[in-house]
Formats: sequence, C-alpha cells, structure tokens
Amino acid sequence: MSTIAYLGPAGTFSEVAAYSAGIEEVVPVPCVTIAEVFEAVERGKADLGVVPIENSIEGSVAATLDALVFESSLEIQRELVLDIRFALVGAPGATLADITEVAAHPQASGQCRRWLERNLPGRPVTAANSNAESVRLAASTPGVAGLGPALAADIYGAEVIEHDVQDYAGNQTRFVVIGRGIQPRTGSDKTSLALFMKQDKPGALLMILSEFAYGDINLTKIQSRPTKRQLGDYMFFVDLEGHVDDSHVRLALDCLRLKLREVKVLGSYPVAR
Amino acid sequence: MSTIAYLGPAGTFSEVAAYSAGIEEVVPVPCVTIAEVFEAVERGKADLGVVPIENSIEGSVAATLDALVFESSLEIQRELVLDIRFALVGAPGATLADITEVAAHPQASGQCRRWLERNLPGRPVTAANSNAESVRLAASTPGVAGLGPALAADIYGAEVIEHDVQDYAGNQTRFVVIGRGIQPRTGSDKTSLALFMKQDKPGALLMILSEFAYGDINLTKIQSRPTKRQLGDYMFFVDLEGHVDDSHVRLALDCLRLKLREVKVLGSYPVAR
Repeated sequence: MSTIAYLGPAGTFSEVAAYSAGIEEVVPVPCVTIAEVFEAVERGKADLGVVPIENSIEGSVAATLDALVFESSLEIQRELVLDIRFALVGAPGATLADITEVAAHPQASGQCRRWLERNLPGRPVTAANSNAESVRLAASTPGVAGLGPALAADIYGAEVIEHDVQDYAGNQTRFVVIGRGIQPRTGSDKTSLALFMKQDKPGALLMILSEFAYGDINLTKIQSRPTKRQLGDYMFFVDLEGHVDDSHVRLALDCLRLKLREVKVLGSYPVAR
Repeated sequence: MSTIAYLGPAGTFSEVAAYSAGIEEVVPVPCVTIAEVFEAVERGKADLGVVPIENSIEGSVAATLDALVFESSLEIQRELVLDIRFALVGAPGATLADITEVAAHPQASGQCRRWLERNLPGRPVTAANSNAESVRLAASTPGVAGLGPALAADIYGAEVIEHDVQDYAGNQTRFVVIGRGIQPRTGSDKTSLALFMKQDKPGALLMILSEFAYGDINLTKIQSRPTKRQLGDYMFFVDLEGHVDDSHVRLALDCLRLKLREVKVLGSYPVAR
C-alpha cells in the first residue's frame, strides 16, 4: 500500500497517471497545487507524489521544474507518459439526445471544441473550475454533460456517453513520480539534470555538450531557462540516456562539476515504455 | 492603421500585448484559436497577428511553435514581453464589501487564489470560460467580481476594484508579432530558428553549437522537441543574438544548412527592451 499525493481533486488526469504507475493499492491524496504535492511527500503525509512535467493540460509544468530545481530535495522516481483522452459523461442513463448543455473546464472544452460543434451543435458550453467539477455536475444534473477522464465518471457516479471526444489523438502528458532517493539501475534508464552556468557566455553550452559527447551519452531533452536571480543568468534542464551509477555518466558529471556553478541531479529512473 | 489578429475574445492579455506593440491605430481582429490567428494573417484578413509563445497563461505555446515551424510561412516581426497583471473588477460603483461571488477563468482564480482567500474569504469562486466572460459577467451582475486585465474592464464597462491581485509578481508572457518577411537589421536583434537533424545521434547538437561558438554567436534559448514524424526524430528551437543579415550569422547558417536536414528561419527582429 502506498499513499500517493497528486494534483487533485479526485478524477484528474494526474490521478489517472497515479493509477498507471503499477503501484499496488494506491491510497490517493489529492492536493490543490503542485507545490502542495511536493510538500505532502516531504513532510511524510504521502509516500510518493505524481506531478505533470511536460505538455500538461492540467497544470503548470514550470511549477514542477521550479519545485524540483529550487525548492525540493525530492528526486524523480519514474516517468509516466499518459494519453490525454476525454470522455463525454452524463447522469446515469443519459444519451447524447438528452444533452442540452455542456459544463466543462475551458481547456477541456477547447480540446473537444470540434467534436462538440459536430455532435452537440447549438448547446451552450458553460465553464467549470476543473474536470472533476464538470463530471460531478453532469452526474447530478439531468441534461448537462461533462468532460473528463473516464475514471472521473466512476468516481463521481456519472456514466460515459462517448469515449475519446478530444479533437486530436496523440495528445500526451508526461508525469513524474517524485520521492526520496535515486532509483537503482535497470539498464534502461534516464537521468534528469539541472545545470547552472558560472556565467552567460558563448560556448558555455558547447562545453557542457562536449563532456556528454566524449562519454557517448545521448541527450533526449535540453531546455534553457532563466534562473530569475539576475538577467542573463541562466541554467539548462537536460535529460540523458543512462543512470548516474553508469561509469561514463558519473565521469561526465564529475567533469561538469569542476566547471559549472552547480550540477543538480533531479533523478535517475527507468525509461517509460 | 493596422488590423491585428490575436487570441480573443476582446480584453485578453493577447489584446493587451497587441496594444503594447507601438502600432498606431490598431484595429483588433479577435480569433478563437492560435491557428486562426495565423490563418487570418495568411489570408490577408489581418496585417499582423499577436500570439503567446512562452510561459503563457492564456493558450498553448506548443500551438504557436508548431504553427511557425510546420504550418505557416509567416515570420516573427517582433517580440513583446508582458507582465501578467490581474485586476479584480466589478459593476460600476462596486466596492470590495459588495462582492458575494467571484466568477473567473480557472487559471486566473488559480493565480490569484491567496489574494482571494485573504480579501474575499468564504466567497464562492465559480468558473468562467475566459477572462473576458468573467469581466463581462462582473460588469452586468451586482455582487459578482471578475478577474482580468484592466483593459478588459474598459472594454466591457466594468470598473477596477483592485489592481494587481495576482499572488506572484513577475509573471511574464512573451508574445510575438507575426507577419510576412524578415524585419530589417537594427543592430540589436534576435533570430529564431528551427533546426532539423538528419538523424538522432550523440554529438548532433554539439556540431550545431560549434558553428555558433565559432561565430561568437550567443544563444538566448535552446529547446529540443520531437518532430512527431517518428520516434527519435527530433529538432531544436534556437534563439540567438544577431540578425540573419549579420555576416557571422549568415555564415553559421550556411554551414548548418550543409549538415542538417533543414534550417528554418522563424524571424529576425528587434530584442524586446
């Protein structure tokens, strides 16, 4: 049994991600913000946390990166890649013909706009504060449909009228599981780093990449970001193939530590299938 | 006089950005999606477009990058960096003591959550589909407050009850003005590029950066992104200091064209102050 903090309320895509992590007997701990998810794990109110980190439609990814880099001593335990699939839901027994109004989070209705125009033309689309609120409202109000993950329908006593009503297939969000310590090596791992320059000059990034190229280490993501300490002071997020316990990765990081202001390991964890 | 397409409805931060561009006599053309902003400019329904590109709270930045890289022949004409400042607004004459409910876009109420808890404790926060809907509702419903840019209050006949109710100062969004052609050199310019690799191998990015380092060209942003054509096929967004008409920039781009699958110039434009 594991208590898992996540961006709530119940029935969000973050909760769907938590259940997809392959953890037995998940006890969900919904939190209001990403910062609160980190806090819940740090204070021992939850064993692990699940937060969106890339292409999220539910929350700010910057909040996750900032928490990992600046505010927290927690590490990434694994990554989860989730297809973002919306269901149109209604009160038990409702069919498409019964629907006179859709109440949905603006981002959800935005992602399903064409489907709604085609299949529920002329029905007003009012706003809800979250996918959970949308589904809860639909469950209890005949004639009103909601949009959310199918999981939310189960949780709030609504029924799925139609699966996969998002306009674009292939919309994915990457979540990370956060907790204490570095995961053991599996042989198919990924490492996330935050690298802080000593100064902003042409060639600083080139030097960093040279160390990785020397070790034949492939980078799967690189992103610059201002540190906000002062203008021109910046850092890089890097994801690389390999584990901090791989000797060639350790060597590269040791060399970088000699040259950079700081090398922060955000986690080594198995690559998502 | 210039017609400017932007992410609407009237009164969004995108419209605030459009007015901040220093263009005389702006005729605003609100669009429903970022794709429609590009389309309006491409089909000549607007002279220019304004879209968020980084850290936006109003729309997907991925949509802007994808449109610039894959779908459009338009170029960035200039960049605009806007402080995201929310005002609490109400019907004319309303004061804080009159407010019994707040109706706001979930992202807006999320960004002002602590201020609302402190200054309007216990008042329910209902959802609106946009900042514009929130402000419009507040203007016409005594007792209901809305959240949006102060500009929206002017547009919809509401009054500002309190300026700067966002919880965190310094929240900025970078917008770009899109149109046809490359802007002339000013001497303080920035160039945005999309670089497509021939293959994913360690050292590909190193080679790219070597060309820039050789020309003493400073990069202000670098971000990797999958191309979605196939797994492992990826590209980089790069912002650099300089103009495509600067000889050292032109030389670096020529050398990269020999080695990469594609070098797409997304624009050369003056650096925002």
